[in-house]
Amino acid sequence: MAVCSAYTIQSLNSTKTHLGFRQKQVILYTPIKKQSTITCSVSDKTVVIGLAADSGCGKSTFMRRLTSVFGGAAEPPRGGNPDSNTLISDTTTVICLDDYHSLDRTGRKEKGVKALKEGVAVEKPIYNHVTGLLDPPELIKPPKILVIEGLHPMYDARVRDLLDFSIYLDISNEVKFAWKIQRDMAERGHSLESIKASIEARKPDFDAYIDPQKQYADAVIEVLPTQLIPGDNEGKVLRVKLIMKEGTKYFSPVYLFDEGSTITWIPCGRKLTCSYPGIKFSYGPDTYYGHEVSVLEMDGQFDRLDELIYVESHLSNISTKFYGEVTQQMLKHADFPGSNNGTGLFQTIIGLKIRDLYEIIASKAATPLQATKA
Amino acid sequence: MAVCSAYTIQSLNSTKTHLGFRQKQVILYTPIKKQSTITCSVSDKTVVIGLAADSGCGKSTFMRRLTSVFGGAAEPPRGGNPDSNTLISDTTTVICLDDYHSLDRTGRKEKGVKALKEGVAVEKPIYNHVTGLLDPPELIKPPKILVIEGLHPMYDARVRDLLDFSIYLDISNEVKFAWKIQRDMAERGHSLESIKASIEARKPDFDAYIDPQKQYADAVIEVLPTQLIPGDNEGKVLRVKLIMKEGTKYFSPVYLFDEGSTITWIPCGRKLTCSYPGIKFSYGPDTYYGHEVSVLEMDGQFDRLDELIYVESHLSNISTKFYGEVTQQMLKHADFPGSNNGTGLFQTIIGLKIRDLYEIIASKAATPLQATKA
Repeated sequence: MAVCSAYTIQSLNSTKTHLGFRQKQVILYTPIKKQSTITCSVSDKTVVIGLAADSGCGKSTFMRRLTSVFGGAAEPPRGGNPDSNTLISDTTTVICLDDYHSLDRTGRKEKGVKALKEGVAVEKPIYNHVTGLLDPPELIKPPKILVIEGLHPMYDARVRDLLDFSIYLDISNEVKFAWKIQRDMAERGHSLESIKASIEARKPDFDAYIDPQKQYADAVIEVLPTQLIPGDNEGKVLRVKLIMKEGTKYFSPVYLFDEGSTITWIPCGRKLTCSYPGIKFSYGPDTYYGHEVSVLEMDGQFDRLDELIYVESHLSNISTKFYGEVTQQMLKHADFPGSNNGTGLFQTIIGLKIRDLYEIIASKAATPLQATKA
Repeated sequence: MAVCSAYTIQSLNSTKTHLGFRQKQVILYTPIKKQSTITCSVSDKTVVIGLAADSGCGKSTFMRRLTSVFGGAAEPPRGGNPDSNTLISDTTTVICLDDYHSLDRTGRKEKGVKALKEGVAVEKPIYNHVTGLLDPPELIKPPKILVIEGLHPMYDARVRDLLDFSIYLDISNEVKFAWKIQRDMAERGHSLESIKASIEARKPDFDAYIDPQKQYADAVIEVLPTQLIPGDNEGKVLRVKLIMKEGTKYFSPVYLFDEGSTITWIPCGRKLTCSYPGIKFSYGPDTYYGHEVSVLEMDGQFDRLDELIYVESHLSNISTKFYGEVTQQMLKHADFPGSNNGTGLFQTIIGLKIRDLYEIIASKAATPLQATKA
């Protein structure tokens, strides 16, 4: 049901009671603090996902995998500011929180996210990377799934508390360095010294504001050098860990063979042959910043389709809707970075887990309160 | 159908044709080489199992576990010579081939086993350990399952070729030494020096005639010191390997989680708690004396029933007839040595695999030739 009307900010607190149903508004949380409410009821609750990572760590690839799971590609708002980082698909809107000032003390981020979560559209600032100033804001309507991504969407406890699920992409220093060399030295002609200097220069901020967020994440994707090739520092073959917090609402960790025990698995053998250096999985319980977690690790890479489907068929709790859905998703985006290793596999799986979580929340929202109490 | 009559040795070759069904005789292969035939047709083919190991390595415990799988305890022949090593149960007869001279060149062992395999009773010599001479022989009727055990039942290729399945118990020197200290020093008051000397004295014969048999075995149970306790040499906690030859007729190796891949599994975790030093399983393909094998390894020991049933429930291809049969068998004989570790577990499983193999052979023998060709 869509009911649209106009209210002043004063009427906000009384809407629920005097209308008898959830009436939603647009609140404009722009930097100039002009606040007014506009309109419109929406039917579903917005599920809010946080994704934090340093720059150049694969957030946009992850977002493309995530929105693909829900069907339909995510695109920038039509006719919008070309500097917008926002991506919109049928179900999902991805906004970049870096457009808000990182040390925002006025709670604009929190209020904006809170409004969207409650089904209220907001106007979001757009940071212009060329001028260094804020462009006119863009209107963000409440989607089914709102992903807030950026360098520190989980840094502020008030924003963090609004997240239904949070993810941190943790690229180890060795791999970050190897990737930067590949991109900045081989492709852009930077010197090794300047790459080292730029990493060093960013380190204090990274250590203070980005890295600490991983302790709050419900899932961390940690990318490390392979252990299958002794002394490897190329950063081409990767060892990737999916660290999943236990006890997260509507999220049950993926497991390998036997939930809660400790396992290593080299699938390459009599039934499946793999090329050098092979593939090795590990799984088991662990603790991470004092939380109970389950960790699934993949070292190595897929060379062929049969390897991918074989691995998928032995993982449990991956929230697929049909046999081979992970493989299908990864093949669909075979050109995305990491499609042949644990980063692609785990991003895809987390996408499926988020779909699951969204569907549980949506079904609960559709159920009368009486029934959910049982 | 039982048809009994007497034949001279000369009539042996023609019995099958002139009677129209399988007519079986008793051939007396005694050391004095007096040969005559006596009687009786039996319906089933005898399945012949070989079990080789050094003395003091647990052959008799294994035999008790094996016969228990078929139901009913194995006992010495009633009214027989107390020096007899023979054990008889409803289905199984265990004879000790050590009663034949180890360097028997006349083929008496082979002929005796061949006769039993063909359903013909034999007279078996009994070596008197006190006099060092041979006592009057005992009559062995062809059982459903004949187990020939001893120091070298697989040494002679002619005997080996008669085996439907063969097992070698391979106790590593470290564990053998620890066991001998426990038994001969702690219980019998021997000195450490005399134990070392006795092991050394037996070594040339062991290396020449006993140890080489393991290359021919379809299954080897190898007993090693634990790796869970660094530097352990007590020999109480054991690491036990079950090495299973691939391609053995009517025998499909046990596996853990995923057949043909390489796996380690520590079942102790969130669902199962274990006391120190825990339990660790390994599984995977390997080669053993040039043969393809699958190896299942258990390090550690069971403290409680739930550990045993949990482990059993995660093993595949164990040839049980109902859920928990391995656990039931092990609990039934909880007082046998090795009931809390891999020796008991793997002996029990091999017992079940032999029952399976026997049933397949028996069902094939009962099926008309036309049908088995399909």
